[in-house]
Amino acid sequence: MFKTEVYINRRTNLKNKLNKGIALIMGNVEASMNYPHNTYHFRQDSTFLYFFGLDYPGLAAVIDFESGEEILFGDDFTVDDIIWMGPQPKLADNAQKAGINKTFPFARLQEVVKKAQEQGRPVHFTPPYRGKNMMTMGNTLGVHPGKVKEMASVEFIKACIELRSTKELCELEEMERHMGTAYNMHTTAMKLAHPGRTEQEITGIIEGISMSGGGIVSFPVICSVRGETLHNHYHGNTLKQGDLLLVDAGSESPLHYATDHTRTSPVGGRFTSQQKDIYQIVVDTNNAALAATKPGITYKECHMIAARTIACGLKELGLMKGDVDEAVAEGAHALFMPHGLGHMIGLDVHDMEDYDQKLVGYDDEVQPSSQFGLNALRMGRRLHPNFVVTNEPGIYFIPALIDKFRSENKFTDFINYEKVEKYKGFGGIRLEDDVLVTETGSRILGERIPINPEDVEKMVLSGTK
Amino acid sequence: MFKTEVYINRRTNLKNKLNKGIALIMGNVEASMNYPHNTYHFRQDSTFLYFFGLDYPGLAAVIDFESGEEILFGDDFTVDDIIWMGPQPKLADNAQKAGINKTFPFARLQEVVKKAQEQGRPVHFTPPYRGKNMMTMGNTLGVHPGKVKEMASVEFIKACIELRSTKELCELEEMERHMGTAYNMHTTAMKLAHPGRTEQEITGIIEGISMSGGGIVSFPVICSVRGETLHNHYHGNTLKQGDLLLVDAGSESPLHYATDHTRTSPVGGRFTSQQKDIYQIVVDTNNAALAATKPGITYKECHMIAARTIACGLKELGLMKGDVDEAVAEGAHALFMPHGLGHMIGLDVHDMEDYDQKLVGYDDEVQPSSQFGLNALRMGRRLHPNFVVTNEPGIYFIPALIDKFRSENKFTDFINYEKVEKYKGFGGIRLEDDVLVTETGSRILGERIPINPEDVEKMVLSGTK
Ligand SMILES: [Mn+2]
Ligand SMILES: [Mn+2]
Repeated sequence: MFKTEVYINRRTNLKNKLNKGIALIMGNVEASMNYPHNTYHFRQDSTFLYFFGLDYPGLAAVIDFESGEEILFGDDFTVDDIIWMGPQPKLADNAQKAGINKTFPFARLQEVVKKAQEQGRPVHFTPPYRGKNMMTMGNTLGVHPGKVKEMASVEFIKACIELRSTKELCELEEMERHMGTAYNMHTTAMKLAHPGRTEQEITGIIEGISMSGGGIVSFPVICSVRGETLHNHYHGNTLKQGDLLLVDAGSESPLHYATDHTRTSPVGGRFTSQQKDIYQIVVDTNNAALAATKPGITYKECHMIAARTIACGLKELGLMKGDVDEAVAEGAHALFMPHGLGHMIGLDVHDMEDYDQKLVGYDDEVQPSSQFGLNALRMGRRLHPNFVVTNEPGIYFIPALIDKFRSENKFTDFINYEKVEKYKGFGGIRLEDDVLVTETGSRILGERIPINPEDVEKMVLSGTK
Repeated sequence: MFKTEVYINRRTNLKNKLNKGIALIMGNVEASMNYPHNTYHFRQDSTFLYFFGLDYPGLAAVIDFESGEEILFGDDFTVDDIIWMGPQPKLADNAQKAGINKTFPFARLQEVVKKAQEQGRPVHFTPPYRGKNMMTMGNTLGVHPGKVKEMASVEFIKACIELRSTKELCELEEMERHMGTAYNMHTTAMKLAHPGRTEQEITGIIEGISMSGGGIVSFPVICSVRGETLHNHYHGNTLKQGDLLLVDAGSESPLHYATDHTRTSPVGGRFTSQQKDIYQIVVDTNNAALAATKPGITYKECHMIAARTIACGLKELGLMKGDVDEAVAEGAHALFMPHGLGHMIGLDVHDMEDYDQKLVGYDDEVQPSSQFGLNALRMGRRLHPNFVVTNEPGIYFIPALIDKFRSENKFTDFINYEKVEKYKGFGGIRLEDDVLVTETGSRILGERIPINPEDVEKMVLSGTK
């Protein structure tokens, strides 16, 4: 964990934002896979990590915004536990590391929360996303587990978002330190992009690199020759010459900060000229969005710059037509890029997505859109120094979407469907970096993973045939 | 999945065992990691896999033991889903693959179950172990989620145990096919057992091999130079010359059958003579237990044979003393091996542990013991052909346990504490294979991972320095 002061300071900042009631901050418990004691890799709740840093299951905390009191709830290990699990830190010692002096057995959580409820004071918490926490919180709050989520505190959520959006120096250092693991994952995948290899094999190898580097993957790996399927977690294909291998993968640092990068490689090492044309538009779009990313601009504006770059490029290739500004305003480009330019990243790969995506990515000034494509933009609001966002434009040829738009006669002024039909089977290309907003502009975190087509080809060719 | 007939046949066998009420068999949903849509690797429920084979989230099934009717509950994907997720199988097509003709939307599950309840018919199910299934089942059954577990059906559980204990030929083929991945994981770990490597690094590499081989690890990897800590999931150590590296790791096959092996390697490639003495006792114990494993014997008897071999060996080294049979009967050897000889293995690494370990491993004939050590034996009952069990004896020097026994003056007739004290810091050795009970005896599944001390040394020395 970071130094104790980091956590004390965060909680002080939180207390400066709320002045009524208590916060109930639930840590996670182990997640059972196929029976109670066979568990997935433990992942602490991000809000709990942010304010307390303690990476153990079975904890919860209460912060009293009126008295300022902080209590850590948990249970010490028994001698029998220690025989099986080895020496374990004491709850009180853990509390000290987080800068908390008061500890209670976990069983007393209900009593403390009930007291606040009886006094008519608000109990603030973020929405639970795991069933077991819903059940524990239901018991604690005296409501049905299914009702807990809707009782989450918007005021508390907004305070957490304000704090977590701006990354501290120690957080940026942790993120940057872990970028080497991301680099290894992606360059290794490039080197393995040869005919005969399987998606499953490459997925395993890059998951292993993540774990060797100190943490689990930050989200389920996408490693597919069918890159046009945006949420593709099928890994059953064998790579063939001429395929494009899209790898969207990230790793958690030892302190659980996420990386998130996408690269798209030509299987065998050489782009076809058709592939290179589309690829170059995506590189240009990524670079244009990066150049636009700076304090003061909204990320929605950056998204629109990306959209415009894509539309221009596709018009040059004859896949789009008509007035580019009009096409982009109406959302015609979303046939090719139906998702947003990016999202905030930090303790979560989609940072704070458990809170409420609209509160994280939008505010009174920048409101979410309902237009297809733009409605998938997770981050629209104005950028500030030390925000970290992903920059991930892409171009895809999605047969089901092409058929849908065409059958609905959508955007016939802007889309050259005859030509688009010929690209069915092309697949998809996405190129994603993690970008820090600096005082004056922005920069990519870590050494940039090869992105120019010739560098990617060189990396693939340097690998195992 | 296996052929459709396999699943039809299993359900027919189940229907022959129960004749009243309905079975409610819940599939798993995705397990959220740090926000709702960021999920762990999907793992279907094993009971659902056994009877239906369908490896998708969001399914449930009802079997009516009176009418014989079978219904699969789930929801088809929308066109929008398909745009993001690619072409998806239809629920009705999936049902066909499992040999089921009737499908209902998931929302109708409650109605079907309620009807059975209103008719006063029993609703059989196995105990849920995930919070979200507890909540769904609570809603379905009209009870509080926290109450569902205690309503599980012992009659249904016993029928499932009877079916799943005896592995079918197709299951054994699937298990044996995947043993190559287990072999690669363990021999790779051996080759990496050199000073300067870290536990974390090796853990990552073997997790990656599991995934590349087709499935997630079957349980959290134990990879530790502190092998005496039995439940050790800390991977923070760097290997040093003279350490023993204990690796207990398994992989899930593509159809989710588990492997589970342990090997213990000398870091740098040479056992010290003290290490070799203890190691040889564990090899001998593993071999003695394997030789004893055959139809007709109870696994408790095999455990006692292992215990006796350990006590004999430790007596020869002067760590134990007195009458060996008495020592074993009283459980003195459990200071060194506080766990059981093994457990059943199949769709779960501890097969069917979600049901109730006592019902899986014991019966009217062989009852669980309360003696320390023997009380940790998961499998005690009589062996039958096509049972698959693990054989995993070990010897550990656990400082906290030595101190506890000594301070309680336990087993002073059988333990030479003066000498045992000198072994504090030694660590622990465990050697585990997966063993099939055949018609006449038993055999190890897959090629045996190197186990003789000279073969292990050779494997380590063949690896990267
Ligand atoms: Mn991303
Ligand atoms: Mn085992």
